Amino acid sequence: MGSIQVKDKVLSKNDQLALVNRELFDRHGIWCLNLISSPGAGKTTLIEKTVDALAGRLRMAVLVGDLETENDARRIGAHGVPVRQIITGGACHLTADTIAEFLKCFDLVALDVVIIENVGNLVCPTSYHLGEHARVALISTPEGDDKPLKYPGAVYTSDIVLLTKRDLAPYTDFSLEEARRNVGRVKPGIPVLELSSRTGEGMPAWLEWFENNAREKNSKRRT
Amino acid sequence: MGSIQVKDKVLSKNDQLALVNRELFDRHGIWCLNLISSPGAGKTTLIEKTVDALAGRLRMAVLVGDLETENDARRIGAHGVPVRQIITGGACHLTADTIAEFLKCFDLVALDVVIIENVGNLVCPTSYHLGEHARVALISTPEGDDKPLKYPGAVYTSDIVLLTKRDLAPYTDFSLEEARRNVGRVKPGIPVLELSSRTGEGMPAWLEWFENNAREKNSKRRT
Repeated sequence: MGSIQVKDKVLSKNDQLALVNRELFDRHGIWCLNLISSPGAGKTTLIEKTVDALAGRLRMAVLVGDLETENDARRIGAHGVPVRQIITGGACHLTADTIAEFLKCFDLVALDVVIIENVGNLVCPTSYHLGEHARVALISTPEGDDKPLKYPGAVYTSDIVLLTKRDLAPYTDFSLEEARRNVGRVKPGIPVLELSSRTGEGMPAWLEWFENNAREKNSKRRT
Repeated sequence: MGSIQVKDKVLSKNDQLALVNRELFDRHGIWCLNLISSPGAGKTTLIEKTVDALAGRLRMAVLVGDLETENDARRIGAHGVPVRQIITGGACHLTADTIAEFLKCFDLVALDVVIIENVGNLVCPTSYHLGEHARVALISTPEGDDKPLKYPGAVYTSDIVLLTKRDLAPYTDFSLEEARRNVGRVKPGIPVLELSSRTGEGMPAWLEWFENNAREKNSKRRT
């Protein structure tokens, strides 16, 4: 009872609910990741390519957050995975209670991975844990190599940074070296991958990181 | 007294302060605009090009909001206009009280235009009036032509939509026609301009819109 009171004081309501989600994932040996980026940095396309590449190897489901429209769920659903669209109706980020509610739509026993695509916003979602094991920040090359410094929370709270739309870099002022340096200034040692969902460049490293993490979590499934 | 109480009920604290800012701008015949977009959609570059193009014709000052860094103020300041960086320290949007505070740094009598560059975020800034006369939403082509539908608040609360980074469109799936259609679905009749700050394409139409609005407001300067 005492420890619960301490938790009440230290953790926000959202963080408490995130821990409940995390416990649910752990109990089922499910690896959960939370994708955060600006609008249009390539979250949906990356999920589509990842689902295709790992079909038959990992059993995945996807929760997609958007202010409006069911476009993303339709796109991802066409790739043969269970998906639910969370329409926030104007809210700028997903919350742990919404995730808990929508997880009820899935048969968790039959899953290895739950991917959460957050609302396109490089600021607010960084403050809300959803119960994920890994947070992924995507920064696309057209956004500029200074973005890690200008939106440090996205880098600092993440476990890996993906520099997306690598194929567009030659047409912009984006310096991959400078972007990597800026990421390192915010969070030294965090893995940084450069990739292009369009050309497939860099995808093998991402898929290896993804599958290794999922396998490690699945191996701890409680039976 | 009665009318003040009604206002208290109807308007948020921020909206009340925005009206105070608006009154200050009106008194000085200053035209104020508020630029809203995702991170890296080209707000700073557009301001640099606009300031250069209209130097000697309009007296401008700029307020720049960012979570961290003074990079943008340094960039814009190099173009010879008064500029102040507002570091929000994590806050996801600018507010009217902060604008009021930083306006004190400028000699308003010597200005025709105040440009506010909001924090890079296509969601939260749309809910906070700053006292601006015009709100400008920028959507860059790499973000995708579906963004007007997915972030309708940015379009709906704005007075003009700029489809930026026109030069990158050929390297993406972006359809300018589809983007225009989607903007029209959210707010029929709103002006939409396509432009590229890099190549200069579309800039004359933007500058004409900008200068006409500024001149109209300046002509109402109270003496």
